[in-house]
Amino acid sequence: MDIEAARIAIREFARRRDWDQFHHPKNLSMALAAEAGELLEVFQWLSDTESRAAHADPDLVGRAADEMADILIYLIRLADVLGVELWSAMQDKIERNAVRYPVDEARGSAMKRP
Amino acid sequence: MDIEAARIAIREFARRRDWDQFHHPKNLSMALAAEAGELLEVFQWLSDTESRAAHADPDLVGRAADEMADILIYLIRLADVLGVELWSAMQDKIERNAVRYPVDEARGSAMKRP
Amino acid sequence: MDIEAARIAIREFARRRDWDQFHHPKNLSMALAAEAGELLEVFQWLSDTESRAAHADPDLVGRAADEMADILIYLIRLADVLGVELWSAMQDKIERNAVRYPVDEARGSAMKRP
Amino acid sequence: MDIEAARIAIREFARRRDWDQFHHPKNLSMALAAEAGELLEVFQWLSDTESRAAHADPDLVGRAADEMADILIYLIRLADVLGVELWSAMQDKIERNAVRYPVDEARGSAMKRP
Repeated sequence: MDIEAARIAIREFARRRDWDQFHHPKNLSMALAAEAGELLEVFQWLSDTESRAAHADPDLVGRAADEMADILIYLIRLADVLGVELWSAMQDKIERNAVRYPVDEARGSAMKRP
Repeated sequence: MDIEAARIAIREFARRRDWDQFHHPKNLSMALAAEAGELLEVFQWLSDTESRAAHADPDLVGRAADEMADILIYLIRLADVLGVELWSAMQDKIERNAVRYPVDEARGSAMKRP
Repeated sequence: MDIEAARIAIREFARRRDWDQFHHPKNLSMALAAEAGELLEVFQWLSDTESRAAHADPDLVGRAADEMADILIYLIRLADVLGVELWSAMQDKIERNAVRYPVDEARGSAMKRP
Repeated sequence: MDIEAARIAIREFARRRDWDQFHHPKNLSMALAAEAGELLEVFQWLSDTESRAAHADPDLVGRAADEMADILIYLIRLADVLGVELWSAMQDKIERNAVRYPVDEARGSAMKRP
């Protein structure tokens, strides 16, 4: 399943349940942010050390993966209803970030993003 | 650029700027949620009608696409540091959702998710 | 219980459970944002009309009140650990907003905030 | 200005700008969550050590206080439109938390909340 197939599968999932009526952009942005909040819950009380070791904890990775899947589903769905080429938008952003955060200036600075 | 290429590009982007130190899962979950908050801002004062027409407003779509790209970048980065196969996790979730929300029961019900 | 009494009660609640170690600002900002995500879930699939009628639905109001209480608790706790006078900060902000959004210019404009 | 005075001031602020039309619960929950996202941004790249020392950094405290004020304003506004007694809801929650997290069981456990 590539990104185009995922888009169609998620669209059909909603259509068959008559959920198109709920899947307008504002609602989807809320659903996505709510899932991002659930992802925060997975990590919120961990120390830096625990966070850095999180990849070795299968239970924690599983919980995170579950929320990440939800976020990706809503992201693909939102892109579909808005007519956004999600993959192109991401590539554009990576290129703009490379200009915005030159390697020499950004090196090691926590305040620079992303 | 497929998802694997994106993963490597984003990883290299961070490595060259010495940002690996900041990119542990807890921090990335915060950065992702902060971007989800910016996505909310794009839609927060729109009426349902305006939300449903959002795809026809290039400025609004552009602003949303920009935040969506940030979210996808952090999602791919988080999957990389956690060792999550993001695409498989999404496919699993779509399959589980199909079981969890049978078409007949879920049809048209706003309270059913996603 | 006034705001000062609430601050002390929440502080003592954490101290007695030895949770001070977890209640540093970064973690509290995550916990607050996670609760804000749960608040979104209460409203995310409602239409504008349903949202405007929400005050008449005791179940929905109760669920919202529960999340709002969590948010206020974390807000007071965060103010305590950061040494922020929450009430003064709010009054300052109200006054600055009055300058920032003059009545004549802001009237009825959805894009003006807050 | 007590909480009742704040409620009236914020209500009047909205009324005079004809913003009541935008201030229904769903929109306010989004605005609150967006501000919670901005609060995350203040802390997202800090180490545990830096977070614990944040109270001593006036610039950082000021930025946090600004976002916290926004969150409190939206919280009071949302309580007003929903008819929630915010202060009572918080006191109830503190009492329920005391039952839910007995001191002996919860002591020092990061996974217990809040």
